[in-house]
Amino acid sequence: MSERLRLYSYWRSSAAYRVRIGLNLKGLSYETVPVHLVRDGGEQHTPQFRAANPQGLVPVLVHGSRTFRQSMAILEYLDETWPSPPLLPGVARERARVRALAQAVACEIHPLNNLRVLQHLENALGLDADARSQWVRHWIGEGFAAIEAMLAEHPSTGRFCEGDTPSLADCCLIPQVYNARRFKLDMAPYPTIERIEAECLALPAFDAARPENQPDAA
Amino acid sequence: MSERLRLYSYWRSSAAYRVRIGLNLKGLSYETVPVHLVRDGGEQHTPQFRAANPQGLVPVLVHGSRTFRQSMAILEYLDETWPSPPLLPGVARERARVRALAQAVACEIHPLNNLRVLQHLENALGLDADARSQWVRHWIGEGFAAIEAMLAEHPSTGRFCEGDTPSLADCCLIPQVYNARRFKLDMAPYPTIERIEAECLALPAFDAARPENQPDAA
Repeated sequence: MSERLRLYSYWRSSAAYRVRIGLNLKGLSYETVPVHLVRDGGEQHTPQFRAANPQGLVPVLVHGSRTFRQSMAILEYLDETWPSPPLLPGVARERARVRALAQAVACEIHPLNNLRVLQHLENALGLDADARSQWVRHWIGEGFAAIEAMLAEHPSTGRFCEGDTPSLADCCLIPQVYNARRFKLDMAPYPTIERIEAECLALPAFDAARPENQPDAA
Repeated sequence: MSERLRLYSYWRSSAAYRVRIGLNLKGLSYETVPVHLVRDGGEQHTPQFRAANPQGLVPVLVHGSRTFRQSMAILEYLDETWPSPPLLPGVARERARVRALAQAVACEIHPLNNLRVLQHLENALGLDADARSQWVRHWIGEGFAAIEAMLAEHPSTGRFCEGDTPSLADCCLIPQVYNARRFKLDMAPYPTIERIEAECLALPAFDAARPENQPDAA
């Protein structure tokens, strides 16, 4: 398992941010290959990058000669390949809760707000910057209300989303909070999410993964 | 593991359809609890249903006294709890591929086209039925082009998305094809997806899970 790890990443991509956290939590060193999602129409659309990922999306993780796509699938692969420290709990029902929280971000919030959707809202539907920001805040707000309830209701919420160690759920949640702040969502209605964010960002693994700490940060 | 299984479902929900396939592939009997997503403003918004899922989304699986949310998390839970026949391959890199294909549907296509998004496009942005259908076809088309490439490029694509047995990826893909047909997307550019759809629907587990075969079908 000593094959080289390379991460196709963009500093502000919240899906790439998830994987950076996971790599850091596992203590794995990796090379960042920056993919500029905006400059020159977006490097994710070049034939070279499409060969690595026909979806035209970051992140992509290359491990030795193998290519991995989709951030949650990559995080599960990291967890299976380097099991310690674990990103998922040991019990099936708890794993299901962690995955459901991760998917509450990755299947319900982020897909509505990523770059290609905002570009489509602008170019195909003619929405201006204000209307696009309102769209983003609408979906993050709705999603966070549900996640706040899922965290607040449950006895196994601890310092982190599940218990007292960071998991796949935290890897997904914290980058989404970054996006929420970028689009100026009022976080006051989500105190549990804010508390967990503070816990996470105090850890070096999360701090080093922040957008502003990336080599390609603007 | 003989506790009762109850699935909160809506016949036409493609996320619920995924879980129905998984339950059938495992040979598990379950009770369908219909949640009508349209009638009376949507039963998913009632306080009773929100107590089961603060996200206001189907499916929800109840196993004994435990509640599970998010279709992919539920399918992984089924796979861990009833391992045979498996929904994921035995090797980490193959599991990653299957999860990435599932997420190419569940994180990139379906979130943009589900009911709450179409309602928002209508009510907040004033898009008419034609414009909404065009939106749906745009995202399914873009997503299917990527999935078609991911399937066509890879030597482990077999009768199904991964090899010759159905997996988590097929559980997600087939309901998305149902949606594509419902919104009259031309499937000709996606021959591998169409071929796999035909293989899947020939299996009783997929056939019994079809929307039109549900007790709450209109």
